[in-house]
Amino acid sequence: MQKLVYCTVRLKPELRSKLEKYARVFELGEESPAPDLAKVEVLMCGPITPQELDAMKNLELIQCVYAGVDALPWSHVREDVIVASNAGSNADAVAEHAFALLLAAAKRVVFFDSRIRGGNFEIVGESRMLHGRRICVLGLGAIGTRVAEIAKAFKMHVVGYGRSLRGAAPLDEFYTPDRVEDALRGCDYAVIALPLTKHTRGLINYQRLSLMRRDGILVNIGRAQIVVKEDLARFLRENPSFIYANDVWWSMQNPAEDSDVYSLPNTLSTPWVAGAASARETYEEMLRQAVENVVRYLRGEKPLNIVKHEDYR
Amino acid sequence: MQKLVYCTVRLKPELRSKLEKYARVFELGEESPAPDLAKVEVLMCGPITPQELDAMKNLELIQCVYAGVDALPWSHVREDVIVASNAGSNADAVAEHAFALLLAAAKRVVFFDSRIRGGNFEIVGESRMLHGRRICVLGLGAIGTRVAEIAKAFKMHVVGYGRSLRGAAPLDEFYTPDRVEDALRGCDYAVIALPLTKHTRGLINYQRLSLMRRDGILVNIGRAQIVVKEDLARFLRENPSFIYANDVWWSMQNPAEDSDVYSLPNTLSTPWVAGAASARETYEEMLRQAVENVVRYLRGEKPLNIVKHEDYR
Repeated sequence: MQKLVYCTVRLKPELRSKLEKYARVFELGEESPAPDLAKVEVLMCGPITPQELDAMKNLELIQCVYAGVDALPWSHVREDVIVASNAGSNADAVAEHAFALLLAAAKRVVFFDSRIRGGNFEIVGESRMLHGRRICVLGLGAIGTRVAEIAKAFKMHVVGYGRSLRGAAPLDEFYTPDRVEDALRGCDYAVIALPLTKHTRGLINYQRLSLMRRDGILVNIGRAQIVVKEDLARFLRENPSFIYANDVWWSMQNPAEDSDVYSLPNTLSTPWVAGAASARETYEEMLRQAVENVVRYLRGEKPLNIVKHEDYR
Repeated sequence: MQKLVYCTVRLKPELRSKLEKYARVFELGEESPAPDLAKVEVLMCGPITPQELDAMKNLELIQCVYAGVDALPWSHVREDVIVASNAGSNADAVAEHAFALLLAAAKRVVFFDSRIRGGNFEIVGESRMLHGRRICVLGLGAIGTRVAEIAKAFKMHVVGYGRSLRGAAPLDEFYTPDRVEDALRGCDYAVIALPLTKHTRGLINYQRLSLMRRDGILVNIGRAQIVVKEDLARFLRENPSFIYANDVWWSMQNPAEDSDVYSLPNTLSTPWVAGAASARETYEEMLRQAVENVVRYLRGEKPLNIVKHEDYR
């Protein structure tokens, strides 16, 4: 009998029909009666509750729609369930956003635009070059690889930090996870493109921020919790020339809790819009790649982007 | 006898000594008495007055410090004087600024940053991708070539517009000056990196703007006068999704005269800071390249970047 795919996001008919070649499909929100969760074998999801996961006693595969799988309620994911991320599905969009933040900070676009709207064309201070500068790319998955490629086009010195070189990012230097200090030391810029795992949570603390140049820029398009917020806020207050350019937040549910960061003048902020929320076409591409990976599994092939449970527990 | 070089900008001692190997040098503002302008053979300048030029009856070479030579009082430049621009000396800085403007507009950085400072994290509207989009690079000198190279790293479809392909820009399509409409038609984005000459003044008018996509972005890091201001203001008012991202202005002396453009919501503005005014290091590099070109002349070699008088008269 065909497997049952439970999908918590809505699919376009052509995507749904790709799954229906191999499986029965139920989309959350569709009119037909909801299936017995105990019979679900494949879950394709964004957010999911612990209760729902507990009820899926026959679950074999969780295919996340988002590039990161950190939001899963991991203590409710059985050890034998395969979990696949959607890594790479939004890499172009997120890498573009990283450079939008880096360049806007370096060239002081927000500062000047707001002054000109008031009729003030005075030129003050200096902009920062990318050319020739040292940039650390933290995380060498699909997003980090794209960031490194674009950084080379800007003629930057690219320092890679990650588990391996498998992504073939064009790096001038490479450091493994045990050498984060060596990767950050003396860098003008850094881009956080890491997944949030038990290894990366709190990776960037006060001491490690201090290794970067005082007039540096840290771009975060990965996950907020990779940076220790209190350390960052202190570092930014002490180093007014250092800029934190950020798309991801510690507390999206209650943004006021992050005001100690975003209210500082040396920050540049967007509201988690680099990836899925950037444009409809990016989200559609993410769904397309997620469906393809599920089809891979339904055909008996090994899905891509299988994550290690141990990294998230 | 050694030639006399009159320099209207101040040079670092090491740059001055490069010239002094081959010439007598006077820098405007230095303490020694000013030379008789009639004896000046080489002029290295930023702004210069018609009266000064008229007085330089033995002038052989004008080396401009800026990439553009349009600000020279051309009707006072004798036909036999060689005029060299400083093209290429700030190409990296200006190309970076072009992408700072393009990406900030595409990803709505100013909009979101200002909302977040007010505690508003709401996600509204859509960002625009660079990946896969059609960008027209108007002008294929050093700046345009760098813009095209970076655009390829963003996986864009690059349409080049210029006199020739000598710069080896990585283009998907190429159009000569008589085909500006074909170059602009259907483009999502365009970057103006042209010099201001009698051929490019007013090149971008209402009808040509209308050839671009209605949700397009026009970046100007060349010269304001290449765009017909009244046409642009009308086009922006009629097409609220189209964005003009601009570093160069029609009336820097009296910015209020350009408020019909910069006060519109669909503009993004910086105050002519892409090149010489971006950072001290960019300006120093411009001086270094200008001095090298003068040295070339003093040694009896042909200077680089000689412009045609007829393009500016």
